[in-house]
Amino acid sequence: MKINIIGPGKVGKSLYNCFLEKNFEVCLIDKNFDYNNTISGIILITSQDENIISIWNNINDISNITAVGHCSGYLDSSFFGNIPHFSMHPNFPFSSVLKCNMIKGITWGIEGNEKGLEIAKKLVDSLEGKYVIIPQNKKKLYHLAAVIASNFSYALIKMSKDIYDDLGIDNIDHLIELSIKSLNNIKEKGLRNALTGPVARNDIKTIEEEKLEFNNFFGNPYVYDFFIDILYKIKEGEK
Amino acid sequence: MKINIIGPGKVGKSLYNCFLEKNFEVCLIDKNFDYNNTISGIILITSQDENIISIWNNINDISNITAVGHCSGYLDSSFFGNIPHFSMHPNFPFSSVLKCNMIKGITWGIEGNEKGLEIAKKLVDSLEGKYVIIPQNKKKLYHLAAVIASNFSYALIKMSKDIYDDLGIDNIDHLIELSIKSLNNIKEKGLRNALTGPVARNDIKTIEEEKLEFNNFFGNPYVYDFFIDILYKIKEGEK
Repeated sequence: MKINIIGPGKVGKSLYNCFLEKNFEVCLIDKNFDYNNTISGIILITSQDENIISIWNNINDISNITAVGHCSGYLDSSFFGNIPHFSMHPNFPFSSVLKCNMIKGITWGIEGNEKGLEIAKKLVDSLEGKYVIIPQNKKKLYHLAAVIASNFSYALIKMSKDIYDDLGIDNIDHLIELSIKSLNNIKEKGLRNALTGPVARNDIKTIEEEKLEFNNFFGNPYVYDFFIDILYKIKEGEK
Repeated sequence: MKINIIGPGKVGKSLYNCFLEKNFEVCLIDKNFDYNNTISGIILITSQDENIISIWNNINDISNITAVGHCSGYLDSSFFGNIPHFSMHPNFPFSSVLKCNMIKGITWGIEGNEKGLEIAKKLVDSLEGKYVIIPQNKKKLYHLAAVIASNFSYALIKMSKDIYDDLGIDNIDHLIELSIKSLNNIKEKGLRNALTGPVARNDIKTIEEEKLEFNNFFGNPYVYDFFIDILYKIKEGEK
């Protein structure tokens, strides 16, 4: 099974190294590739989302292609047409090129047509990963969940860091630790039993006064209420 | 140094056990205590925020009290008056009574008058903790930072869980792992270098289309923009 990875970014290079380590025949294709050459085997496009379709359109001869896929979290793979196709998106922040053992065990969101999905499962297995299968028409919503869990976490740390700057306190490592500890508590106990803080105690005075602090500090009267409502749903919801 | 802990909740019991283990003379006081009895040594009130002042008002004889403090994150300690006073708030989610070694190394937010602050530092030292000193008039803002880092993280997981319910996928452990991995990346690389996702790539089409998904799914047109703005501040800000 030959794999052609198109897009030598963080994800592309990491997968290239990893498939090599797993003894696959792998080729890493960059923008200087002459698309008049024939590509054979599996194509995996790891470029930025907005370039995926145009890269696919560059490929003239698809007669030797077993399957084609990409790693976007946001796009599905239906535009590839009748050829076996798939997408496989890592639920993992590739903030640099990673070694193979660092992505072992991560969960890939996969979708595709029947034959494409089989290829995606084999590729994930060979990377020693896990997968969840996404309904093809809900790929954007799926990706939004990852953005919320990952990127919005950065925003929370930035928000608490801005407050600490105002307090004249430099070090926020303990706030990051606090957040990690809270998340580990969710894994251990479930959302409802892990919940602490003013909403867990139904401490309405604190909730109301901190709302004023929030709105004053961040200049936004909607975000705090939105979060407090969700915390109450956790408190009152399923274990 | 005798320590009287008033409020046998999760924090109170954890500290009681821990100070005992450190060979302090400790007394754990509950609501059945007769406040006509004299209390001597340090008082540490670990009850819910709204009961702290009324508990303090119950204490008639303060002649043998060395210092008085509480563990609220939200209240400061100025209302105690001229007596040596402090507050010491754990940046840690006490979702149950915890063993002493589990709170070793955590960071306490402390404030107080000069003599009170000295006592708070000693107590934190004896618990093998670290501390940050909070400006007394900014206690609420300080606590808000902890609520954002800890409680709002629960809300992000709840939000992504609600999306996964809609996708028909039960397991969200990998989303919690994704969030933890992202936070660890911030510790290692700093906010800007750790950032991944559509904003890091300035992928405007994805950002705009996921905004529609967000607003549609959560029925709120303000929250997504607020977070995206913060992520852009990270992208463009200090390392």
